[in-house]
Formats: sequence, C-alpha cells, structure tokens
Amino acid sequence: MALLPPAFERLVRSLMKLPGVGEKTAARLAYHLLQTERRDVDELAAALTRMRAETRLCSICLGLAGDDPCDLCSNPQRNRSAICVVERPSDVIALERSGGFRGRYHVLHGCLAPLDGVGPEQLRIKELLARLEGDEVAEVVVATNSTVEGEATALYLARLIKPLGVRVTRIAHGLAVGSDVEYADSVTLGRALEGRRDL
Amino acid sequence: MALLPPAFERLVRSLMKLPGVGEKTAARLAYHLLQTERRDVDELAAALTRMRAETRLCSICLGLAGDDPCDLCSNPQRNRSAICVVERPSDVIALERSGGFRGRYHVLHGCLAPLDGVGPEQLRIKELLARLEGDEVAEVVVATNSTVEGEATALYLARLIKPLGVRVTRIAHGLAVGSDVEYADSVTLGRALEGRRDL
Repeated sequence: MALLPPAFERLVRSLMKLPGVGEKTAARLAYHLLQTERRDVDELAAALTRMRAETRLCSICLGLAGDDPCDLCSNPQRNRSAICVVERPSDVIALERSGGFRGRYHVLHGCLAPLDGVGPEQLRIKELLARLEGDEVAEVVVATNSTVEGEATALYLARLIKPLGVRVTRIAHGLAVGSDVEYADSVTLGRALEGRRDL
Repeated sequence: MALLPPAFERLVRSLMKLPGVGEKTAARLAYHLLQTERRDVDELAAALTRMRAETRLCSICLGLAGDDPCDLCSNPQRNRSAICVVERPSDVIALERSGGFRGRYHVLHGCLAPLDGVGPEQLRIKELLARLEGDEVAEVVVATNSTVEGEATALYLARLIKPLGVRVTRIAHGLAVGSDVEYADSVTLGRALEGRRDL
C-alpha cells in the first residue's frame, strides 16, 4: 500500500529534478502547493508550459528572447560596433539595468572550467567568432565573472580575437561603489590600485 | 522595452510564490527549466495540475489522501482503538516507516503557537474531539514535535481529552538510536534518565 497518494508522489518526483531540490524540499513544496489556492497552482502550471513554448534563445546573441531576433539585437538604436560577452542570460539583464552599455551582447552559456569538463567547444564561442566576420564589430567587451574561470575565459577570448584586428577590453575591477577600503579584500584593492585613473 | 520575455517573467513571478523562493532563485529555476527537455517541463506542469485535482485531505484523519477516506483510515486491519496525533501529513509517513504504530492517525495541521497567532481554533482539534465520541477510541498517542510549541500542544490536548475517559500518552524522549551519550544535549539526557526502564 502506497503511503502517499500517487499524484502527490508524482509531483514530488518531478520537483526533485529542479536544481538544489532534494526529496524533503520537494515534499515540502508539494505540501505547500496542496494548500495553495487551486487557481495559483493552475497558473504556475500554465506559466511553465507557456514559458517553455514561447521563450527561446535569440539566434544572434543567444540571450533569452520572446521573438527571434531578440529586442536588443533587432533594436536599430543599439551600437552595432560593440559586443559585450557575458556568461549567462541573467548577466545581460544586470548590465542593461546599469545603463552603461549601448552595444549588443553575446551569451557564452558558461565559462571555461576544464575540471568540470567545460572546454571551448561547450561554450558558444564559434557563434561569437562568426559575428566578428566582416568589419562591423570594432570592440569586444568581456564581462565574464571575476572568478578564476571567468578570468581564464576572458584571457582565452582575448588571445583568440585580437589577431582578427578587433579591440578586446575587460570590465574594470575595483572597489564596489559605496564600500569601504578597510573591508575590501587585498586582491580587489590591488586591482583597484592597478586600475587607478587621473582625477 | 521589457528586458525579459513576458512568458519568462510570468513564470518567475509564479515561482516566487513558493515558500523560500525569492526573485533570484525564481529566475535561476526558470533559466534551468528553459534549458530542460521540453518533455520534463510539460511533465512538471501536468504533475502540478493532477496533484491539485487528485490529492485531498482525508475527511477522517485529515492526512493526505488519493481517495476519501484514505488508505489508512479505510484499512480494516488497523486498530480502531488508538489514534496517533501529529502536526503534519509528512509526520504520518515518518511514523508509518517506523512500523511502530498500528492504529489510525489524526493530523492537526500545525501546533499551538500563540506568538504566530495559532490558537486551538486554527488547529483541527474539533475534528479530533468528534472522533473520540462513542467508546471506540481508548488511547490517544500524542506525537507532536519535541519543540516548545509541540510540547505545549501535547499538554493542551491531554488536559482536553483525559476528562473524556480516554488515555493520553506521549511518544518517548531520549537518546537517538546510534548516538553517543557524550554528545547528547543535557535536556535530552535528563529526559532519557527520567524515562529509564527496567532491563
């Protein structure tokens, strides 16, 4: 005799496929959903199906897109001579919120991590190089994370792209705005000094 | 111009209603689901709808049920003279796995927590008392959690039920099986000594 109703068990198994969700979390979520308004549960189910059906990766920048090409790639007001390279689609959102970049993006979908078996072939680097053919693009801004893997990816891209006659730049490292010198780690402080600018 | 495709944003908002899921977690889950096999996403959506449609609370014990009454309540082999009272439906599963109880259950759906505004009226105590009418039930085993609130709930139930001529017992406190005396906390050790038994 099963201890849990089959439909409940099925949902728990399905939720366990989500990242970071084990059996106990899945059961807690399912139990919560059982006590949620039925309308909200149906809305979540519909949102799942719709998202998967209507969201795709832009065929140009490989970021999230409702239409293909995405709003950013099809916007004639964006500077076509600069491409900002990021690891994840969510990085595009963060950079757009900053308002500091008016060019277009390219999402690598990861960074080089040989220990996890992620080499250049697993990233969308081929697609980036294809976009650099022709003379349209003058600068590639590498905005990968400031981790060991992100830095290695940036260096790898620089070595690959510079020979094509395209300028490769890296976003700056330094103190976070609003933070204290006293509490900054020494590596960050070292990079902040190295990158000092005239006032 | 929206930064995120509308269907993606809708899913993020829907996921944010889950307990413990904020905007960043919701976005990470949605991004994960975008890269998951479409079949798995559709399966999750279907499991949600089915669970909500097919799982209910048993009208007798208020535990999770596919059919009403649930398998445990309708099983003629279970001892009808004992009711084990628990806080959550998941507690029933844990106790059933132990195999130590052959009676039926009653789920309170919480415990007394006056600071959080949970009084006796918010728990399914009325339904428990109704089950004690007649002479069928001889013992109520209180298996609420061993927290301050769980203990208070147990005492409250004892004071309520004993006058009805029904025996009220509490599951034992003591050392967890396989654990060391040296590392047990002193309150638990005190309860273990108090509850010592003849060998």
